[in-house]
Amino acid sequence: MSVLTVHLADNSYDIHIGADSLDTLGRLCEQIGLTSRAAVVTNPTVNRLYGSTVRTSLENSGFTVSVIEIPDGEEHKNAATLSAVYDALIEAGLDRKSFIVALGGGVVGDLAGFAAATYLRGIPFVQVPTTLLAQVDSSVGGKTAIDHPRGKNLIGAFYQPRLVLIDVVTLSTLPEREYRAGMAEVIKYGVALDLAFFEWLEEQTANITLLEQECLQTLIRRCCEIKARVVEQDEKESGLRAVLNYGHTFGHAFETLAGYQQLVHGEAVAVGMAVSARISCMLGHCGVAEKERITALISSFRLETAAPHAEREKLAAALALDKKSCNDTVGFICNMGIGNYAVEQLVPEKLLALSGLEV
Amino acid sequence: MSVLTVHLADNSYDIHIGADSLDTLGRLCEQIGLTSRAAVVTNPTVNRLYGSTVRTSLENSGFTVSVIEIPDGEEHKNAATLSAVYDALIEAGLDRKSFIVALGGGVVGDLAGFAAATYLRGIPFVQVPTTLLAQVDSSVGGKTAIDHPRGKNLIGAFYQPRLVLIDVVTLSTLPEREYRAGMAEVIKYGVALDLAFFEWLEEQTANITLLEQECLQTLIRRCCEIKARVVEQDEKESGLRAVLNYGHTFGHAFETLAGYQQLVHGEAVAVGMAVSARISCMLGHCGVAEKERITALISSFRLETAAPHAEREKLAAALALDKKSCNDTVGFICNMGIGNYAVEQLVPEKLLALSGLEV
Repeated sequence: MSVLTVHLADNSYDIHIGADSLDTLGRLCEQIGLTSRAAVVTNPTVNRLYGSTVRTSLENSGFTVSVIEIPDGEEHKNAATLSAVYDALIEAGLDRKSFIVALGGGVVGDLAGFAAATYLRGIPFVQVPTTLLAQVDSSVGGKTAIDHPRGKNLIGAFYQPRLVLIDVVTLSTLPEREYRAGMAEVIKYGVALDLAFFEWLEEQTANITLLEQECLQTLIRRCCEIKARVVEQDEKESGLRAVLNYGHTFGHAFETLAGYQQLVHGEAVAVGMAVSARISCMLGHCGVAEKERITALISSFRLETAAPHAEREKLAAALALDKKSCNDTVGFICNMGIGNYAVEQLVPEKLLALSGLEV
Repeated sequence: MSVLTVHLADNSYDIHIGADSLDTLGRLCEQIGLTSRAAVVTNPTVNRLYGSTVRTSLENSGFTVSVIEIPDGEEHKNAATLSAVYDALIEAGLDRKSFIVALGGGVVGDLAGFAAATYLRGIPFVQVPTTLLAQVDSSVGGKTAIDHPRGKNLIGAFYQPRLVLIDVVTLSTLPEREYRAGMAEVIKYGVALDLAFFEWLEEQTANITLLEQECLQTLIRRCCEIKARVVEQDEKESGLRAVLNYGHTFGHAFETLAGYQQLVHGEAVAVGMAVSARISCMLGHCGVAEKERITALISSFRLETAAPHAEREKLAAALALDKKSCNDTVGFICNMGIGNYAVEQLVPEKLLALSGLEV
């Protein structure tokens, strides 16, 4: 098992990356001083696959465990599900010394994390991500949220987990579509922050697609390292951290407009990155060859790079609602070549014009 | 205008205490670097009295202002009102650089503060408390929350304001019942933390009842100082800060069981303090004479000290739900004599037995 520390003063925590390591959860929770009751928030699919391993591990370490199932899918990452989780936490008798374990993908992690951030004004929280997207991105960095009918992640908090446990073996049960979607966030780190990693991804495409285990551990550790270094410098996204939203301005907009079932988050980010590369090229931040290399890497994981149909007005409105908007402009992340980035303050109409989208 | 700084590292802020000072709000917000749009969350009564002064002051400093009214009363400090506030914030186009002004009492401050803590994962927040309770207690220290059908303040966050502006003249329009209720929190500081302040309150009862303005400014400043020193040592209530819950364990339980309209927060705390003094006496932490002196000071502000009728089982359940509960015991704050405190870990049944309540 390899361990990576995210250094955030009082909020520091370790990420444990291993294979077949779910049964170490109870011991790890004990080691960091957690006590009392644990509520495992998960979805029915993940619960069936890994619920009993996690529960047994926690119980063997003396914790009283309750399991709270929430429905699967981004469309359930909302106020109604959150309210049901609050009710279940109260019903299970969780007090301030109790903690929440998020066992699942980004939806479970974001929602359970926000519940932990706000139940009794905040109780400890442990991430056990079981999707590629959650393992390389959403479980690290303390962003928690639920969606609002008007946009994704509009309600949330910065709230760091006390521990992250990543077991790469859980990826073997992940639907192929989810696995490919998760690769979008992986590629993002390369494009915006790390040329060497981008090149490694180009070389390792076959091994990654085959879920080669050593390769996966390397990939996940590298992504967590890149993300941790960014989050350490800007925990609450007042500046640098915005780079992690590369591809997300259009991605979120497409996701909202297409409906969360039509386009899963990673798929939307893949399209968003292709649009970002095109805009970066138009603004002179990268060459045509680099733009095409980015699009090629995205396509090599069988992710779509062409934008779905959207009405111009709705798209402009969705872009304007982007959390990164400041006054009437959007802080848009461009790639500078490959492995670097620049931020451009642009109004949504200008972004649309640059995107070359026929909307 | 007198200024008191709450020292909390990155979260430090100033409390400005004055008379006829509402119109300085815009300038104060400018001085701390706030920009863009402001949403003033208030209730219809306070809006009618002070809304235009606050709005004009903000607009004169160049802010774009929208006003969001929420219904008055603790029974509206809930998820439905919060949801309506989120919708209004989105509708008003508030982005991450925008801020929320809470203009009103504890309900407005707690709910608007929680909205600020969670909208776009947190935007800046300014407290302009207009009730005695909010001025001496709830506006200082960063506790924000909404209630849940199962108990008060079960959902919330620790989130510090960027600025607190207290205008004692607003107390002249406060209903007398609310003013008296606010005195419960004032007395709390004396009983649990400051004998000299307790004695000053005994001497000043007449002036306080007459809303003598100099006296009020002294009173409010002293309460804010006491609270600030506690919060500075324990921002997130991991220890010392629990002392501020003196009288609140039974107070919250009575408030929940009686219904928020029957017994307003301060009235419930007044009864809760009388019960706490009795339990402290039973446990040998204070003498009978001190217990009676505490009850007498509470009564001198025409606050009830006798507990309302409640069913034993419901009361025990409400006590067990207290946020300060750890495993199955409640961290109960006793007064040691007057001006000091001690924490006792007790199960709810033991608390009920010691309380002498005939339930």
